[in-house]
Amino acid sequence: MTITGELLIDGGARPGTGGAIHAVDPSTGATLDVTFGGATKADLDEACALAAAAFGPYRATSPEQRAVFLETVAAKIEAIGDDLIVRAMAETGLPRARLEGERGRTMGQLKMFAGVLRDGGWLEARIDPAQPDRKPLPRPDLRLRNVPLGPVAVFGASNFPLAFSVAGGDTASALAAGCPVVVKAHPAHPGTSELVGRAVQEAVKACGLPSGVFALLHDAGIEISQGLVADARIKAAGFTGSRRAGLALTAVAQGRPEPIPFYAEMSSINPVLLLPNALKARGAAIAPDFVAALTQGAGQFCTNPGLILGIDGPELDAFLAATAEVIAKAPAGQMLTPGICKAYTGGVKALAETSGVTEVAHGLEGGHGQGRATLFSVDAATFLATPHLQDEVFGAASLVVRAQDLAQLTQVLAALEGQLTIAVHMEEADTDLARALLPTLELKAGRVLVNGFGTGVEVGHAMVHGGPFPSTSDSRSTSVGSLAIFRFLRPVSYQNLPAALLPVELQDANPLGIARRVDGKVVLA
Amino acid sequence: MTITGELLIDGGARPGTGGAIHAVDPSTGATLDVTFGGATKADLDEACALAAAAFGPYRATSPEQRAVFLETVAAKIEAIGDDLIVRAMAETGLPRARLEGERGRTMGQLKMFAGVLRDGGWLEARIDPAQPDRKPLPRPDLRLRNVPLGPVAVFGASNFPLAFSVAGGDTASALAAGCPVVVKAHPAHPGTSELVGRAVQEAVKACGLPSGVFALLHDAGIEISQGLVADARIKAAGFTGSRRAGLALTAVAQGRPEPIPFYAEMSSINPVLLLPNALKARGAAIAPDFVAALTQGAGQFCTNPGLILGIDGPELDAFLAATAEVIAKAPAGQMLTPGICKAYTGGVKALAETSGVTEVAHGLEGGHGQGRATLFSVDAATFLATPHLQDEVFGAASLVVRAQDLAQLTQVLAALEGQLTIAVHMEEADTDLARALLPTLELKAGRVLVNGFGTGVEVGHAMVHGGPFPSTSDSRSTSVGSLAIFRFLRPVSYQNLPAALLPVELQDANPLGIARRVDGKVVLA
Repeated sequence: MTITGELLIDGGARPGTGGAIHAVDPSTGATLDVTFGGATKADLDEACALAAAAFGPYRATSPEQRAVFLETVAAKIEAIGDDLIVRAMAETGLPRARLEGERGRTMGQLKMFAGVLRDGGWLEARIDPAQPDRKPLPRPDLRLRNVPLGPVAVFGASNFPLAFSVAGGDTASALAAGCPVVVKAHPAHPGTSELVGRAVQEAVKACGLPSGVFALLHDAGIEISQGLVADARIKAAGFTGSRRAGLALTAVAQGRPEPIPFYAEMSSINPVLLLPNALKARGAAIAPDFVAALTQGAGQFCTNPGLILGIDGPELDAFLAATAEVIAKAPAGQMLTPGICKAYTGGVKALAETSGVTEVAHGLEGGHGQGRATLFSVDAATFLATPHLQDEVFGAASLVVRAQDLAQLTQVLAALEGQLTIAVHMEEADTDLARALLPTLELKAGRVLVNGFGTGVEVGHAMVHGGPFPSTSDSRSTSVGSLAIFRFLRPVSYQNLPAALLPVELQDANPLGIARRVDGKVVLA
Repeated sequence: MTITGELLIDGGARPGTGGAIHAVDPSTGATLDVTFGGATKADLDEACALAAAAFGPYRATSPEQRAVFLETVAAKIEAIGDDLIVRAMAETGLPRARLEGERGRTMGQLKMFAGVLRDGGWLEARIDPAQPDRKPLPRPDLRLRNVPLGPVAVFGASNFPLAFSVAGGDTASALAAGCPVVVKAHPAHPGTSELVGRAVQEAVKACGLPSGVFALLHDAGIEISQGLVADARIKAAGFTGSRRAGLALTAVAQGRPEPIPFYAEMSSINPVLLLPNALKARGAAIAPDFVAALTQGAGQFCTNPGLILGIDGPELDAFLAATAEVIAKAPAGQMLTPGICKAYTGGVKALAETSGVTEVAHGLEGGHGQGRATLFSVDAATFLATPHLQDEVFGAASLVVRAQDLAQLTQVLAALEGQLTIAVHMEEADTDLARALLPTLELKAGRVLVNGFGTGVEVGHAMVHGGPFPSTSDSRSTSVGSLAIFRFLRPVSYQNLPAALLPVELQDANPLGIARRVDGKVVLA
């Protein structure tokens, strides 16, 4: 498959004339081959018009047809072969094994949503049968199902060029829901985006779907991104990126004449709580696992452990000493883009210069565009008095907060902003304390985990990759896992419809064989 | 039960010193007894602080405890007896039978949510068991459930002094979810609000719950309302009212440092589509039913039929003639407040003065504060060219839009804003046409109904009382029916929690006996 640098619209490719975009090899700073053309407003308009036109026929497809389509997308991505991995390596600096794993994850997500479609739970099918003899008034026949919102805008993320990009979780869940998708590619990996976009286009064609079901746009600035969210035909959007960009686009979504749901996953420092008995029993043993989680992928995960909380004392000192020893030998990690590298360096410098913050250790110096791990520490009083210490520093930096006692630790927990994850390290003897803290933790985070780190987000049915603001713009939702399909659905109630008009999932005979709620009770097929 | 005009905070009552509010009998214009004191900022602050403090212990109650609490609220409302009905009649002008029915509905809603709590489906409990031997990486144990968002603000509605007010649907669903509630009473029925508020307070006490679970505030202006939505301790809000007020409060909710979900049910004209064979077979028979729906409660329903769509011709003329005859004899209806009456009169006048709009008929002249039914007609081309004709006129006014042909009718449908309901009147011979239109209708409305009118919103499991903007601010939700509990919940994922820490609904033994999704498949208890 050849990369041409074109926009993918209407089942074909065309050069974008709205400015040039070049990918850069972050490990050398060298510009990669192929010039990508940014979309013009006319391109954007056409992509949205086609998506709107495709919405009717696309949502009319059966869940089985869409399941096959998603499986076809997965197969077409696999069929790109090694070209995809090679280009993604060049554009992101991520290693082969990671990208191969991420490709598997991307295909796995698509297949999971195929399963979700066949299961039918996403329809939230409900039937309250008529009660013609009810007094004082008869009860009408009422049936409910979810319908898709309409065309969806998806913004590719820098740090997952496959799993959170062109055919990533947002695209998979939106397509599953019955929504056409217009993707704005992340400018750091336009070639990877094009390859995957072409695979999706091929799947659209192979499945005989309208061409407007999918489009891929590049944006040389921010106008197309903002225009995409502002377009009246777009009915929801998914975004993974910085807090600043996320909030700016959220404001566009809310400022429209018709506001739309905007799902931004933005920033999280993923606190790690070291409970006293765990620190005592195995503080030194936690250290290498922590450093591995911190430095994996150069720390460029939304779930990177950026904050460690513990009660001050010799056990915490021992943990810090052990951690410092491991970090000192940690090789620097290749960062995704020169801009991210620069921001990381700046963030680390700002931390180092913050009054009361001490550097505990740093990793080995790296080469071009690499970031070295850095661990800081601060006492809890300073942390509580310095709100910006909660700002995410994207990369392998982490801050240890030393609390005087449990009361102060609890105070720090209460002061935390919303998070994607909070991890608790504990021994059995910490159970009562953990139980007492759990209500606070679950109100601060979308996922609470024990004796591990938040990196490694399982794709499944019980996963929440989301959380209270500012970790996301909408805590009622997740961007990973099967619950994500509900982002792009809304319920509709049907009253006294003749059988001939009923959607298939609500017909008495239940031809789809799905679980439904009848008179409020779950009834299996 | 005595009405004192006080605020209900911390399980007791206190005079509000933030300005005086008086209820008015809309049928006479006379000021009713009791002066109600508006809340000060200090009152607001205290109510929010208590709600925040109550949240922890309240959400820690079992679903069964909250179910009993909701049932106790219902019993306490019933125990107020006729005083409630008499005061509500005086404050709203609504007739006894309607208010007795509404009281039953209010109690029914509370009991329905008790059933929802016992069923457990609201928890969305999911378990993905660990797979320690999975390659390349073991799968962790992941479990998911919904948790409540936090304290909720509820704004009472003018037109349902019981069912959409102090202990109405929003309060019932928020309390069911585990969220304390701070209610801002509607100033048109403060005495009714106080009576119901005291009943809730009694139930809080009887069930041994923290006093901060419930508070009732009056607001002599708009500052307390805005301050309530802006308060950092409030985590979601429900509102039923005008588009203007709804949008203003939505902006407050979105403009907070931590934005919150704001569920505003605002405006809808509830189109009624008269398909050709229905018009032909029984146009004249539809007329009295339509007028009954239009004039019920003086037209003061969110689901009032404010727009009739049909294809021009002798059948539509016959329907109009029959309707005009019934309307001409329709008595005027008492409106809820002098302000609503004035706005209705102004809205009718503006319609009458709109170029191309003709008055078809009006009802009998009424007494003080009454509104008479008015029917207008307009051709579809004018309707399409005059966007303000889609603005809701709250009361018994309706506009018939005459389309030249099916193509123009379809054009009108496509141009409609989002609605709470769309009704289709059809005969069997209209089935193909109805089937072709259904995809458009279900994207425009939260409820599609056949051969009826949207008034009469059934409280059940398959009801959606919601819809695309501007009928509501969030089409993913409903304010009536059991799905409403999801407004106030968010999912949390638990990874590798020891059994001793697992919430009861996620324990292996399933002690609550609820349906759960295990590895993606629904498993009944």
